[in-house]
Amino acid sequence: MINKLIAGIQKKNAPVVVGLDPMLNYVPGKIKDAAFEEFGETLEGAAEAIWQFNKGIIDAIYDLVPAVKPQIAMYEQFGIPGMVAFKKTVDYCKEKGLVVIGDIKRGDIGSTSAAYAAGHLGKVAVGSKSYYGFDEDFITVNPYFGIDGVKPFIDVCKEEKKGIFLLVKTSNPSSGEFQDQKIDGKPLYELVGRKVAEWGEECMGDAYSYVGCVVGATYPEMGKVLRKIMPKSYILVPGYGAQGGTAKDLVPYFNEDGLGAIVNSSRGIIAAYKNDTYAKFGEENYAEASRKAAEDMIADIRGCL
Amino acid sequence: MINKLIAGIQKKNAPVVVGLDPMLNYVPGKIKDAAFEEFGETLEGAAEAIWQFNKGIIDAIYDLVPAVKPQIAMYEQFGIPGMVAFKKTVDYCKEKGLVVIGDIKRGDIGSTSAAYAAGHLGKVAVGSKSYYGFDEDFITVNPYFGIDGVKPFIDVCKEEKKGIFLLVKTSNPSSGEFQDQKIDGKPLYELVGRKVAEWGEECMGDAYSYVGCVVGATYPEMGKVLRKIMPKSYILVPGYGAQGGTAKDLVPYFNEDGLGAIVNSSRGIIAAYKNDTYAKFGEENYAEASRKAAEDMIADIRGCL
Repeated sequence: MINKLIAGIQKKNAPVVVGLDPMLNYVPGKIKDAAFEEFGETLEGAAEAIWQFNKGIIDAIYDLVPAVKPQIAMYEQFGIPGMVAFKKTVDYCKEKGLVVIGDIKRGDIGSTSAAYAAGHLGKVAVGSKSYYGFDEDFITVNPYFGIDGVKPFIDVCKEEKKGIFLLVKTSNPSSGEFQDQKIDGKPLYELVGRKVAEWGEECMGDAYSYVGCVVGATYPEMGKVLRKIMPKSYILVPGYGAQGGTAKDLVPYFNEDGLGAIVNSSRGIIAAYKNDTYAKFGEENYAEASRKAAEDMIADIRGCL
Repeated sequence: MINKLIAGIQKKNAPVVVGLDPMLNYVPGKIKDAAFEEFGETLEGAAEAIWQFNKGIIDAIYDLVPAVKPQIAMYEQFGIPGMVAFKKTVDYCKEKGLVVIGDIKRGDIGSTSAAYAAGHLGKVAVGSKSYYGFDEDFITVNPYFGIDGVKPFIDVCKEEKKGIFLLVKTSNPSSGEFQDQKIDGKPLYELVGRKVAEWGEECMGDAYSYVGCVVGATYPEMGKVLRKIMPKSYILVPGYGAQGGTAKDLVPYFNEDGLGAIVNSSRGIIAAYKNDTYAKFGEENYAEASRKAAEDMIADIRGCL
């Protein structure tokens, strides 16, 4: 799947992933009204609204970008109906040829991580049969448990030829509270980064590993160091746009081959019509606003590489 | 809810939580056959089997223990039908008067943590109404993001009078890979522990905070130190029984008031009938075997306190 992701990035000349993190207040009134008309102001109504909203955006951007990253929390908050909307979104994106990065940030002790890995990347056995649960192509994983919490994910990646992005340095303001703490003179995120490189070596695609990492766009100096520590790991970079990262900041996240990083934007694209720059599209043309914002982001990043 | 948990522990004289982490191979043949008969060997069939299995155990143990801890990964692996079984389990346990600790180990940047907090502890707004998604009483939270990933959970705890258990030192063999790394001479888990104490001070129940922590039974020396660092935080202790922790190991996790810790056993109770000690109950009486195992565990822990 890492090979497929890279092929998509090259074909579309766009190291960009669109974060499908819908909030109900991003959904245009017409879509919301129709959903509430059918299902009432219920969790089912909310789930229908975000699913229809997503569908509009996916239809508008699937030819521009290689991948999408649905953030499961935004669906999970609506309970079971929300999880159904998540699954529909994953399936629809795959139908459209997009690589799906499930932003689920799971992680636990070994046997429990194995269950998450089965549910999100692999198959679960039921009697004589087996089934995919959510069936994303990649997922994000939290490393706090150490290798025996991560290995079950890597095992399933090998079987299924899928991938993970391990959290190394997150984009939020307080990420340094634990991640920047110095261990033998080096920050914790570097130690995690070295482990990502080590764990990734045993499951390589053609040029890059199935084991990637997350490094926020908001910390470019750290990105530069981490790029060198993990030369064969794809870096998933959140924090561009709404969180403050600029295209210029992103250059150090890439390798000399022009590959090695994929930059996420969520709100900046899916809620573009709420931004002054794209307000002229109007609420009804939210998906076209998203398309234009994706085009602009791609051009912005291309311009700096 | 921390007050309710403590009242339950005192009333039942049992600082014990039963981990509802069903694996399909724990489910007795008769229950599995009936579920597959109705739904086929499908995800729905698997979900029905684990739900019926859980129900039998809950009916057998609800009067003995104050709380249960369903591990969401074991449900999530069966996709949407598994999530439905998780929700049914949470609701049924609450009907039976049990405190429900959702073992979900979520955590993300602020806005995303807010969505998880809304979905699992609080309510989500839909138009003019609002709804609980999964509605556990407590959840486990991963601290890797620092305070701005944790604060949204604390905010909802204050509103809803619910609680969280932050991962400090996990029970798995490789937990030390990052958690034991020395920062200014002290291990990372101590730094996280000090933050738990600090964050917990602003949301106190009567004697203990809404903000608890997770410290594995497999590291009693560390438990002793952490108990002192976080005197007002309840410690959720996994790792008793199947993972190797003994009752004697647990003494340092408690305060002098006899409170301050609640010990989890999952497999040792819910799959007791598969253990030689309880094999005489037979597969059909799996729930009675679980009841006896819970009684023995409670007596074991009472004997050491």
